[in-house]
Amino acid sequence: MQLDQGQLERFDKEGYLFLPNTFTADEVGVLRRRADAIFTMDREEVWRESSGVARTAFAAHKYDEGFRRLGAHPRLVEPVMQLLDGPVYMHQFKINAKAAFDGEVWQWHQDFGTWHRDDEMPEPRAMNIALFLDEVSAVNGPLMFIPGSHKGGTLQAGHDLATTSYPLWTLSRDEVTRLANEGGCVAPTGAPGSVIMFHGNLVHASPPNISPFPRTIVYLSLCHVDNHIRAFKRKEWIAHRDFTPIAPLPDDCLAELVKQERQAA
Amino acid sequence: MQLDQGQLERFDKEGYLFLPNTFTADEVGVLRRRADAIFTMDREEVWRESSGVARTAFAAHKYDEGFRRLGAHPRLVEPVMQLLDGPVYMHQFKINAKAAFDGEVWQWHQDFGTWHRDDEMPEPRAMNIALFLDEVSAVNGPLMFIPGSHKGGTLQAGHDLATTSYPLWTLSRDEVTRLANEGGCVAPTGAPGSVIMFHGNLVHASPPNISPFPRTIVYLSLCHVDNHIRAFKRKEWIAHRDFTPIAPLPDDCLAELVKQERQAA
Repeated sequence: MQLDQGQLERFDKEGYLFLPNTFTADEVGVLRRRADAIFTMDREEVWRESSGVARTAFAAHKYDEGFRRLGAHPRLVEPVMQLLDGPVYMHQFKINAKAAFDGEVWQWHQDFGTWHRDDEMPEPRAMNIALFLDEVSAVNGPLMFIPGSHKGGTLQAGHDLATTSYPLWTLSRDEVTRLANEGGCVAPTGAPGSVIMFHGNLVHASPPNISPFPRTIVYLSLCHVDNHIRAFKRKEWIAHRDFTPIAPLPDDCLAELVKQERQAA
Repeated sequence: MQLDQGQLERFDKEGYLFLPNTFTADEVGVLRRRADAIFTMDREEVWRESSGVARTAFAAHKYDEGFRRLGAHPRLVEPVMQLLDGPVYMHQFKINAKAAFDGEVWQWHQDFGTWHRDDEMPEPRAMNIALFLDEVSAVNGPLMFIPGSHKGGTLQAGHDLATTSYPLWTLSRDEVTRLANEGGCVAPTGAPGSVIMFHGNLVHASPPNISPFPRTIVYLSLCHVDNHIRAFKRKEWIAHRDFTPIAPLPDDCLAELVKQERQAA
């Protein structure tokens, strides 16, 4: 899977691309069921909201066959290899639950800000590509971007240890307001199976989910292998230390798993 | 202004109607400026979030000429008279700020639940009609509805005194989930000047606004004059005690004010 010239130009200008209908309902279904099972697991990689429901499950590609395949899926890995111009490794892998009623805020931040400050990743030659496992709409805490905000480099940030259960380097309100007055603020919404990819310096956030519907998104944070992290302060399952280039699997790797599960059922 | 047959049928089925482009940019502009001025006023009708920014300004139709005219505007009053089949009075008038960054949640509730329990309004022959003074989008805490949820009457509710600064009779998560599994959950979005009207028993909520953009909506709660409240426990400026039928003003009443302000400038 390769991005075309128009998509490359749009990514350069806006800092993100939204790709609806990238995975089928069957492919999403097999992952959705596995995500629910993972959220109930009592393991350190499953981070919880203050209410106790799952907020983020890290590194599921290491302990679940469905997410192992997703972590090397060509529809996710190849567009990022194209944009970063070379082989990539998995810096972080997470399933963000944003549970019905309880899913809490992610304050305004740049991911590279955290990767650089906490993990000493040298340059923003790393980015997220994310898959919607639920429909994302205006009601269930959609991801919000400030288009073009990746152009200003890595902005000053404060270490927010108070707002939620997860530490994050967050931007000031003045900075967010200034950027949004220039670039606006968008929340791409769409069906399960949609994919969104965004620059490591794109400013983003997501509001709480007060709706009765969950909003699960899987994030692959992929980094050029030359640009691997230098510091190992965070847990290995939050900021991986295995810099082996990902070899993309065949395009039908998830469809194959769907078939196997059907035969076993 | 009269609703057509298709609109009447949609309202009956879904419990709300969204009417984009109902007021002009000029008409909205004159109200937007006045709302900002009101939010800075130190008066008891202006309720604040825990952060100190304005949450709701009550009864502005009593102390501001722009909102006085809006409170008798035919584009708002006449459709409600049509649906409630007779003359109406102003039960409540409020400007909800939902300020940038600080605007807090409104939990899931039915307005008639509060009108009935707190004010002894006999029947749900009362409803809201609301005007967007800002663009409402997925990013700034849009109003969320459960279509069809007005059909089940007035549901059991608990008095929420803790979540926000404003007391509200709110529904249980189980009830909201049950209703949304039947009717779904929608968040109508649109430009300033859009109007939304909804049944007194329609279940609704709105999430916090973490965006850098405010989301101001003016609500007229209009009640059939025969159905006026019987109890006067809440402040007069929250639940009005003047049951005089509203005489709709001419359609150009706000345009006229715009013209006057331009001449005075």
